Amino acid sequence: MRPLSNAENRNATTGVDPLPSWNQGIVKARILNFVKNVTDPENTNYITPEDRIAVFDNDGTLWAEKPTYFQGFFVLDRLEELSKSNPEIRSRNPQLQQLLLNKNLTNLQLSKKDVMSLVLLTHSNITQHEFNKMVQKWAETAHHPQTQKRFVQMVYKPMNELIDFLKNNHFKTFIVSGGGIDFVREALSKVYGIPHDQIIGSSIKFRYTNGRNGGNSTILREPELASFNEKEVKPENIQLHIGKVPVFAVGNSDGDLEMLRYTADNNSPGKSLELLIHHDDGVREYSYDTLAENLLIEAQRQNWTIVSMKDDFRIIYPNTNSAS
Amino acid sequence: MRPLSNAENRNATTGVDPLPSWNQGIVKARILNFVKNVTDPENTNYITPEDRIAVFDNDGTLWAEKPTYFQGFFVLDRLEELSKSNPEIRSRNPQLQQLLLNKNLTNLQLSKKDVMSLVLLTHSNITQHEFNKMVQKWAETAHHPQTQKRFVQMVYKPMNELIDFLKNNHFKTFIVSGGGIDFVREALSKVYGIPHDQIIGSSIKFRYTNGRNGGNSTILREPELASFNEKEVKPENIQLHIGKVPVFAVGNSDGDLEMLRYTADNNSPGKSLELLIHHDDGVREYSYDTLAENLLIEAQRQNWTIVSMKDDFRIIYPNTNSAS
Repeated sequence: MRPLSNAENRNATTGVDPLPSWNQGIVKARILNFVKNVTDPENTNYITPEDRIAVFDNDGTLWAEKPTYFQGFFVLDRLEELSKSNPEIRSRNPQLQQLLLNKNLTNLQLSKKDVMSLVLLTHSNITQHEFNKMVQKWAETAHHPQTQKRFVQMVYKPMNELIDFLKNNHFKTFIVSGGGIDFVREALSKVYGIPHDQIIGSSIKFRYTNGRNGGNSTILREPELASFNEKEVKPENIQLHIGKVPVFAVGNSDGDLEMLRYTADNNSPGKSLELLIHHDDGVREYSYDTLAENLLIEAQRQNWTIVSMKDDFRIIYPNTNSAS
Repeated sequence: MRPLSNAENRNATTGVDPLPSWNQGIVKARILNFVKNVTDPENTNYITPEDRIAVFDNDGTLWAEKPTYFQGFFVLDRLEELSKSNPEIRSRNPQLQQLLLNKNLTNLQLSKKDVMSLVLLTHSNITQHEFNKMVQKWAETAHHPQTQKRFVQMVYKPMNELIDFLKNNHFKTFIVSGGGIDFVREALSKVYGIPHDQIIGSSIKFRYTNGRNGGNSTILREPELASFNEKEVKPENIQLHIGKVPVFAVGNSDGDLEMLRYTADNNSPGKSLELLIHHDDGVREYSYDTLAENLLIEAQRQNWTIVSMKDDFRIIYPNTNSAS
């Protein structure tokens, strides 16, 4: 593909490149052209601001997800904390001792049921207020075992720029994550500049308790899954939380396939853009297609836009010193 | 109570009264003072913009709800339409014939279960897209049996001003309604200037269907209740959809009690405001305390702000000619 000149990738009005961490090329041009067209009242593909809904998956789309979803490290850290006061947590699960010592989830031999029970154990039976404080503290202190960066410093800089670019063009940006809704809110809302109410995710059951007789009324987190925000549940939760069809959708794995298809199917051609973040940079990030096979096939079939992290991202992570 | 002078109720900077449809008095002064204080960085009660969350009930708080919730008239109109092609709908419920003829829901002898089954019948087994169009059309054409106004013209003008006033002061305003989430969105989003994603309500189950083999993927509305957004469910859904504790909460009935209590309990004194809309104007609107008895007792006990529609609202409805 012909590399685009700097001029073609620059904002027509100001001459400033709104996506400096993206390399020049077809992908960047497609994004810039889409936004230019749909925000131009004279263009046939014009979209009014109230319908400019953009949805982003989180793990592997906005920040890294290897060696496992970062929320898994939060689970381990919480388990370690819980097992101090409650030693039988270790003995109940023979692998847990090893997991806690190694902080290694790659060789995880747990069933889906085991994983869910560990998630519920570490995310529930606590007030919402306490949980929020815990995630905030974790996000400020926990580090990735390989890069030694704080996890929140492993947000992809080009994607944060893309969010800002869309916001500046009066898109309303939402995160639609398979991760826990409150985990993502408390860890990442400030990093992305996306408010809590524009973050959707998996959730457990919330229970209001009445504070009349003594204590204050509050929200308790119950050990029961309410919504697992993956695959077909993503468009369902988009309807519940947003109530409109997105016109811009970004994902990286098979769990995002329905969200991208829903976006493509329910807009006229030229009135939506679907992006797939392809993990093909084994040097600067990770290289894998596992759990993205179906999405890759469909993206090629439908001519969705495949973002090569190797070719299209000029840099991956923000400079550690300047990262928030 | 001493009536406040015009000067005291005016915006200090511009001299323009931001709430011209409210009479001068203690209630208006409380609202203006609260907003002045929490938006002033020098004030001890300052609240940062991202925490300025305001929640409003809908029926009886933002628009009228007599002789019954306006969504009930939508149900009747839909039943009439459905029974044209499906006559056994009438025969299945012996009262329905009478209801449809009279459009009278005041003497309704239906059980809660019957009501729910009529709601599900009229709100489901249809695509989300079709449902949206139907509500939009209804909102544009249906009229209130007593006032002859369109239902959307029975939004209280002082409340619409209050929403605008809060928005101008960088509050994020949400509707938290017992009514159907998509009914409120499609009928009222434009009237209030509140986007779809900031409207929360009762919901039925959404089901994504895959469009691979032929048709487009879409959201179907299933005949199954997912969330009945009343009482303790309101704070639970506030956590799910907003993820923050409100600092400004307005309601009018016992179904709003938990929402107001949750707001009051989880903020320091001076850092939240709770309003109760009291229906005490039998001349210009309706006068009733039914189903608001507990909220009235609690509001007096907690010194929440009771808005008298008779005394505090200078006018009730917008001028019909200028209404949208």
